[in-house]
Amino acid sequence: MAFPGAGPGRDPAARHRVVIVGGGFGGLYAARALGRDPRVSVTLVDRRNFHLFQPLLYQVATGALSPGEITQPLRSILRRNANTTVLLGEARGIDAASHEVLMADGGPIPYDTLIVASGARHTYFGNDAWAPLAPGLKSIDDATEIRRRILIAFEAAEREADPDRRRSWMEFLIVGGGPTGVELAGALGEIANDTLRNDFRSIDSSEARITLVEAVDRILPSYPVDRSASAERQLGRLGVTVRTGTKVVDIAEGRVVVESGGVRETIPARTVLWAAGVLASSFARSVGETLGAEADRAGRIIVGPDLTVADHPEVFVIGDAAVQPWKEGRPVPGVAQGGIQGGKYAAAAIRRRLDGAPPKPFRYSDRGDVAVIGRLSGVTNIGWLGPLGRQGGFIAWVLWLGIHIVYLIGFANRIVVVTRWAWSFLTHGRGSRLITGDPLLPEIEKPEPPA
Amino acid sequence: MAFPGAGPGRDPAARHRVVIVGGGFGGLYAARALGRDPRVSVTLVDRRNFHLFQPLLYQVATGALSPGEITQPLRSILRRNANTTVLLGEARGIDAASHEVLMADGGPIPYDTLIVASGARHTYFGNDAWAPLAPGLKSIDDATEIRRRILIAFEAAEREADPDRRRSWMEFLIVGGGPTGVELAGALGEIANDTLRNDFRSIDSSEARITLVEAVDRILPSYPVDRSASAERQLGRLGVTVRTGTKVVDIAEGRVVVESGGVRETIPARTVLWAAGVLASSFARSVGETLGAEADRAGRIIVGPDLTVADHPEVFVIGDAAVQPWKEGRPVPGVAQGGIQGGKYAAAAIRRRLDGAPPKPFRYSDRGDVAVIGRLSGVTNIGWLGPLGRQGGFIAWVLWLGIHIVYLIGFANRIVVVTRWAWSFLTHGRGSRLITGDPLLPEIEKPEPPA
Repeated sequence: MAFPGAGPGRDPAARHRVVIVGGGFGGLYAARALGRDPRVSVTLVDRRNFHLFQPLLYQVATGALSPGEITQPLRSILRRNANTTVLLGEARGIDAASHEVLMADGGPIPYDTLIVASGARHTYFGNDAWAPLAPGLKSIDDATEIRRRILIAFEAAEREADPDRRRSWMEFLIVGGGPTGVELAGALGEIANDTLRNDFRSIDSSEARITLVEAVDRILPSYPVDRSASAERQLGRLGVTVRTGTKVVDIAEGRVVVESGGVRETIPARTVLWAAGVLASSFARSVGETLGAEADRAGRIIVGPDLTVADHPEVFVIGDAAVQPWKEGRPVPGVAQGGIQGGKYAAAAIRRRLDGAPPKPFRYSDRGDVAVIGRLSGVTNIGWLGPLGRQGGFIAWVLWLGIHIVYLIGFANRIVVVTRWAWSFLTHGRGSRLITGDPLLPEIEKPEPPA
Repeated sequence: MAFPGAGPGRDPAARHRVVIVGGGFGGLYAARALGRDPRVSVTLVDRRNFHLFQPLLYQVATGALSPGEITQPLRSILRRNANTTVLLGEARGIDAASHEVLMADGGPIPYDTLIVASGARHTYFGNDAWAPLAPGLKSIDDATEIRRRILIAFEAAEREADPDRRRSWMEFLIVGGGPTGVELAGALGEIANDTLRNDFRSIDSSEARITLVEAVDRILPSYPVDRSASAERQLGRLGVTVRTGTKVVDIAEGRVVVESGGVRETIPARTVLWAAGVLASSFARSVGETLGAEADRAGRIIVGPDLTVADHPEVFVIGDAAVQPWKEGRPVPGVAQGGIQGGKYAAAAIRRRLDGAPPKPFRYSDRGDVAVIGRLSGVTNIGWLGPLGRQGGFIAWVLWLGIHIVYLIGFANRIVVVTRWAWSFLTHGRGSRLITGDPLLPEIEKPEPPA
C-alpha cells in the first residue's frame, strides 16, 4: 500500500494529509491526537462551527442549560494545532479513485487518510411523515425546537378555557426507552412536578400526563435487568407512565397509536418527542456505498479490527457512523466513549503507520453507563466496578454530574454548567426556559376577528 | 372618573384589574411594584415567555454570551406574586369603550387600568426592502441571526479562494452611531483583532474592514462632545472606521450607498448591521390611534406628567413606547432606566389612586449612561457625578461591568455572566460563538456538480 509521507525515505515537505469529517467526539479526539504531529496535516470538516457535547443535549431541550453552555467552537478548541485546518462545510461523499472528499458547497478536499466521524441521526423507520409531529433530539436546533414545544404546551394549557383541550395540551409522549428517552422523560416529570409548580395560575402543571413508550420488554435495554427496573421505579415517582413491549404504529395530530400484545390502542398526546431509531449520517452511508462496504440495518459501516473499511486501509470509520467491534460479536455501544476511543485509536494507528510500526487492533474499554432521572436520582451500570457499579438514586446522580463535568469541553463551560446545576438544585428552577422562534401559539383556537 | 376597587366604600372582593402589555423593563418593574398589593390583580401579557436584558443583547449578537444568560422566564420572576397572572400572547389593540385589550390569539382581556409597556422596534425609515440585507438588533432571534452572519462571514472568507470575494466577506458596515451601533462596532473590532486572531489558517481576521456610519456629526450624540470624541478614538484603535455626517441612501447585496456633504459614494460591505431608527411597537401605535393620542415621528405616544394619555387617565404609556417628559422640553432617553422608572412610577400612581391620595408628577432621575467599546475601554456620561462622571477607557469599562451585573435579572445569570466575562478577559475568547439555524454558506459560489 502506498502511504504518502511514510517511511524513512519520505519527502519531509510532503505531509500526510488526514481529512476528518465530523467534529463530534470521534472527530474531535482524533484531531486532537494528531494535532502535534508535524508529519501530518489535518483538515476537520463539519457542517457546524462547534463541537456539541451531546450527552447534555436533553438538558437544553428541557431548559436547564443554554446551547452555548454545551458547545465550543471547533476553531477555538484546535487553534493551537498549527497543522490543523477547520472547515465549515457539508461533505457529500468521496471519490474513491482520486482520494477526495466531495463537498456540497465547495471544491473537493484531497486526503491520504480519511476518518469518517460523521455520526448518526434518528430515523422514523420509513415513516418520515411523523417527523414534524414528533421531533427528534440530535442537534442544537432540535433541542431548542423541543424546548419550544414543551414550554408552549404549558403556556397554551394556561390560556385554554375548554377543559378537554386544556388536558390535551398537558399530554406528553416520548417514543424510545433508551438513555435519551429516559432522561427526557425524567426531566419532563421534574418540570411538571417541580420546576413549574408555582408558575401557573389556571393549571396545575403536576397534572401533566407523561408516557414513555418502548418497543422491547424493558427500558434501558443495554443495562442489566435490575437497573431497568430501578429506572422504571424512579420514573414512576416522577409521574411518568412507562409502557414497555409497546410499539408505535402511527402518529397523528394529538394522538399516538400503539400496539401491545397484538392489541391496538390510541393514546392522546399533543406533544410527542422521538428518542428512537438510529441511522448513520448520509455522508457515512454514501462512503459505504462508494467503497462497497458492508453496513448494518442502520446504515453504519461494519469496520475491521483496525476500524478501517475492508480493502480500504486509508478509510477509518469511527463512532456512531461505524459498527466498531467489541466482544462476543457485540459492537461498541453508541455512546460518547465509543467515539472518543475510536478517534484516539484512529489517530494512533495513523501515527504507527508513519512510524512504520505494525498495526494493533482496536480495543474498546467499557467505562460504563450512567443515566440521570430527574433530581437526585439515576442509574449506573459500570461493569469494571462489579456489583458496586450498579447504583441507583443519589449515588448514580452524583457520579453522573461528575463524569459529565469532566468530559465537557471548555473550562468556562464547566464553571457555568456547575453554577447552573447548583442553582437549579437549590431553587428547583431551570435557567434557560426561553421560547425562541415562532412566539405565538399557532394551534390555539383563534376567536373570530372583530368586524 | 370611575375607579373600580378604589375608595373606602369599595367592594373588597372586586380587585382593581391592571393589565400590563410588555415584559421589558417598564412592564416588569410595574408588575413587581404591584405584586404585593392585594387590592389589585395584575395580568402581564407578552409575546415572549421571558424578560430580556436588552443592554447585553449585543453581547449575544457577538458571541460573548448565550441567550439563556440574559433572559429570565417572566413566570419565574413573578411566581411569588399571587395576584399576578402571566399570559403568553400577542396584544393587537384595545377596545377603548369596553376597556379591553384585544388579542391576536385569544379572547379579550378586560382592564380597569392599562399599562402600555410594549417598547419599540427598529425602523428602516420606509425602506423595508433593506430589512433582509441589514438585520436590526431588538430580539433574541435578531441577535442569533446577527451572530450567524458575523461568524459565517469569517468562515466563508476562510474557504474562499478568490481574493476579491474573500476581501468582500471581511467587509462589515454598521448603520447608526448610538450606543448599540458603537457597542456592536467595538465588539466586532475585538472579534476581528483579538478573539479570532489564531483561529483561521487562510485569512488574517484583523484585516477585516469595519465601518460605522452615523448621519449626524458625531457618534453617541446623547453624550457630551468630548465623550463622542473619546469613543471615536477608542473605536479607531480597534480598527473601526467612523464616518459621521454620513447618511445611508441605499443598501444592496454587497454594498451600501452613502451620502456625505452632498457627495454619493458606494462602500462595499457584505455584512451590514442596522442599529438606527426607532419605531414604537405596533400595539402602542394602535392604542395611540384608538385613543386619538398625540405621537412623535417614531409613533411613541406623548403622555402627560403622570405618564397617562390625555383624557385617558386609565391608560399609562411607559418606556420606549412613550415620550416620557423630562426637562427643558426634552424627553426621557430610550434607555433601561426610562422603562424601570416609568414602570415603578405607574405602579405607585395606581396605588396612590387606590389610597385616594393626590397624584404626583413623574420625575426622571438621570443615572447617566455608560457604553463599552471592546476590552478595557468605554465611555461614561454620569451627570450627577460632575466632571468625575465623564470617564473613558478602563474606568468606564469597570463601571459598565458593575452596573450591568447589578441590574441583570436572576442570581444564577449574574454568576454565569461574571464567569463568562472573567474567562473571556483572561483568554481573549468568546464563549458562545455558535452558528445555529442554516448551517451552510448559501452565498458561497458553488462548483459545478460532477456529472
